Amino acid sequence: MNDQLRITGITVTPVAFRDPPLLNAVGVHEPYALRAIVEITTDQGLTGLGETYADEGHLRRLDRAARALTGMDVYALGAMYQRIAAGLADDTGADGSGLTGLITSSSTVDRVFSPFEVACLDIQGKAVGRPVSDLLGGAVRDEVPFSAYLFYKWAAHPGAEPDPWGEALDADAIVAQARRMIDAYGFTAIKLKGGVLPPEEEIEAVRALRAEFPSHPLRLDPNAAWSVPTSLKVATELDGVLEYLEDPTPGQKGMAEVARQSPMPLATNMCVVAFDELAPGVAQDAVQVVLSDHHYWGGLHRSKLLSGICETFGLGLSMHSNSHLGISLAAMTHLAAATPHLSYACDTHWPWKDEDVIQPGVFAFADGAVRVPRTPGLGIELDRDALARLHEQYLACGLRNRDDTGYMQRLHPGYRLRSPRW
Amino acid sequence: MNDQLRITGITVTPVAFRDPPLLNAVGVHEPYALRAIVEITTDQGLTGLGETYADEGHLRRLDRAARALTGMDVYALGAMYQRIAAGLADDTGADGSGLTGLITSSSTVDRVFSPFEVACLDIQGKAVGRPVSDLLGGAVRDEVPFSAYLFYKWAAHPGAEPDPWGEALDADAIVAQARRMIDAYGFTAIKLKGGVLPPEEEIEAVRALRAEFPSHPLRLDPNAAWSVPTSLKVATELDGVLEYLEDPTPGQKGMAEVARQSPMPLATNMCVVAFDELAPGVAQDAVQVVLSDHHYWGGLHRSKLLSGICETFGLGLSMHSNSHLGISLAAMTHLAAATPHLSYACDTHWPWKDEDVIQPGVFAFADGAVRVPRTPGLGIELDRDALARLHEQYLACGLRNRDDTGYMQRLHPGYRLRSPRW
Ligand SMILES: [Mg+2]
Ligand SMILES: [Mg+2]
Repeated sequence: MNDQLRITGITVTPVAFRDPPLLNAVGVHEPYALRAIVEITTDQGLTGLGETYADEGHLRRLDRAARALTGMDVYALGAMYQRIAAGLADDTGADGSGLTGLITSSSTVDRVFSPFEVACLDIQGKAVGRPVSDLLGGAVRDEVPFSAYLFYKWAAHPGAEPDPWGEALDADAIVAQARRMIDAYGFTAIKLKGGVLPPEEEIEAVRALRAEFPSHPLRLDPNAAWSVPTSLKVATELDGVLEYLEDPTPGQKGMAEVARQSPMPLATNMCVVAFDELAPGVAQDAVQVVLSDHHYWGGLHRSKLLSGICETFGLGLSMHSNSHLGISLAAMTHLAAATPHLSYACDTHWPWKDEDVIQPGVFAFADGAVRVPRTPGLGIELDRDALARLHEQYLACGLRNRDDTGYMQRLHPGYRLRSPRW
Repeated sequence: MNDQLRITGITVTPVAFRDPPLLNAVGVHEPYALRAIVEITTDQGLTGLGETYADEGHLRRLDRAARALTGMDVYALGAMYQRIAAGLADDTGADGSGLTGLITSSSTVDRVFSPFEVACLDIQGKAVGRPVSDLLGGAVRDEVPFSAYLFYKWAAHPGAEPDPWGEALDADAIVAQARRMIDAYGFTAIKLKGGVLPPEEEIEAVRALRAEFPSHPLRLDPNAAWSVPTSLKVATELDGVLEYLEDPTPGQKGMAEVARQSPMPLATNMCVVAFDELAPGVAQDAVQVVLSDHHYWGGLHRSKLLSGICETFGLGLSMHSNSHLGISLAAMTHLAAATPHLSYACDTHWPWKDEDVIQPGVFAFADGAVRVPRTPGLGIELDRDALARLHEQYLACGLRNRDDTGYMQRLHPGYRLRSPRW
């Protein structure tokens, strides 16, 4: 009997990877996105991988958790969660969540626990010779559909060479971006990150996408840039065009007000981002679709719990993405494969990056979907050279906390953070 | 890579085991309790066990499901659930749930799926050399506390020898029963099945238990035998005495009415017994504690989902029991061990039976708790001779559907089913 599979070591490596100047409601992506790579080793030589945020406060919590978990059995996930919760009991979370302004109140315990759970599931899968999806109840789909995630963007970071995607600051450019992305990946759903231009211009962009892609489900996400009246105006104008409208306005109360008159469902990764926000969200009918994200919903098992809650309470489920690398894509894919109640194609920033820490070749998009790996664990391998390179990049780039607003303000001193803005 | 672990055969064996004449709100337990034992065999020689109800309609559905699942991979739990749901899509559930009148509207799919999921987890655990609790996130407790489950009862089934427990039809006899059961098992919580005698007498019994066992948490479960006013009267009289009052009155609406004024939480295994009853139950605040039961909540993973829902929506969680054998006790124990949010000692009918289908020795109660097996899978072995004997007993006893009311009426023709009765 394989009585224990003990954690003998955990390393947390912050990395930085190039990120284009993607615009959003709080500013613009900096030249590098930060992630932390978690590696767990065990006494039987099996290793597992996790990926999470890398802001400084989060890194400190990860290090503390890593020490607390060393020596534990990789199957003791419930006990790990409790130990992390106990260790964070005196943590105010005041030094930053690593989620930028767009997600503010998610559970610190769930964020810290997540990469360790994923790495332990990777090890469990290798131990039994099974993909992680099998440990989550088995895949109910062979491939996971993702959406084309469009952004308004600049041609280049100031002082740098233009990236291959070019500038996108109007409807025509957004349609061109969609065409290029869909030609390359085959996506069958489209999401536009909004909250950047005045609402009329974003409505125009969505209509242009509809004209060019008549059968692709469309979503618009202004990240709470609008007042309730503006939200209702946009919702009314895009009646029959959007499959859902994501976070038009701040807070559950405002969202509930919009939801009462909105012709389409409202989705969120802002006003319901932790388990303790579900009950008030349901009571107010503030949202009709929750965007899950295992990075802040406490890992894969708890993201399945979220899905079960959504199914039980009549809510749709979609999947949120921050800028991420291949370990996260693997985890998202296994999770989505093993989640029967997943109502929409998942979001991913995948097309926007051009470097990674995993060996290439596992994830090839076809028709906008990724095949679920059937190899043991997450089905990926770390590229140690790439990890070292991206860690060097982290050390050299100087970025330590994601700050889309500060970056924008350095470039445009007059820029002010406002929610709602319109 | 262990790519598949295919189901090569499933057998469903109905069994009957001796059951004392325990009284409840709908009649009296018949001389035998019925269960179905599910055995799954795989292409790699590993086998797994499940246990469920054995009423005729349920047996027919189990047989249909067994055929549908043969050939599937034991890790494909989500796909199995979907296949069973598809197979039952035209099933009205009209020919009986096998749950007697006390649980009426639980999901047919969840009931049918449950024993197959448990058996597959037993196999998965054996495949990886791990207890089932590890597959559910790992045990967060080494032992699982159960409650002393007291019943009003007759001395014997008519025409039969008295059982060792003797008659219990008043407060003194209930206290004596509790003393005997606690001396033998060490239980540290007590539940009295009520709805049998007029409420004043049951209040008297509870007070007598409190006097004799000053520090044991107490529960009373009249199975919806009372009107709303009667429920409130009992709740008021037992203020400070009961940790919870279980199903005083029928229906969520009535329960919500009682809950608004009840000094103690209300628990249920009657008005919230399926996932689709959770949302209205929460909206009305009809209950404050849900009794989980993997036999009708869709197996162990879905019972964990129920626990997560209860935690998320501020509900307590306890565990329900029907008359059961050792396979079910094993499943209940692994589930409870791996369920962090379990607020109360679990119910079990265990002390009331004197025969089983498993090899003895695994479950020894100490201080009212059972140690969680650390051996692979459920940690139990089938006793094939005992299985054959209890199957013969099933064939010979003539009982085919649980019918506490019909049995009572054959013995007391004037008996009428009434809910509420008082
Ligand atoms: Mg969003
Ligand atoms: Mg009950």
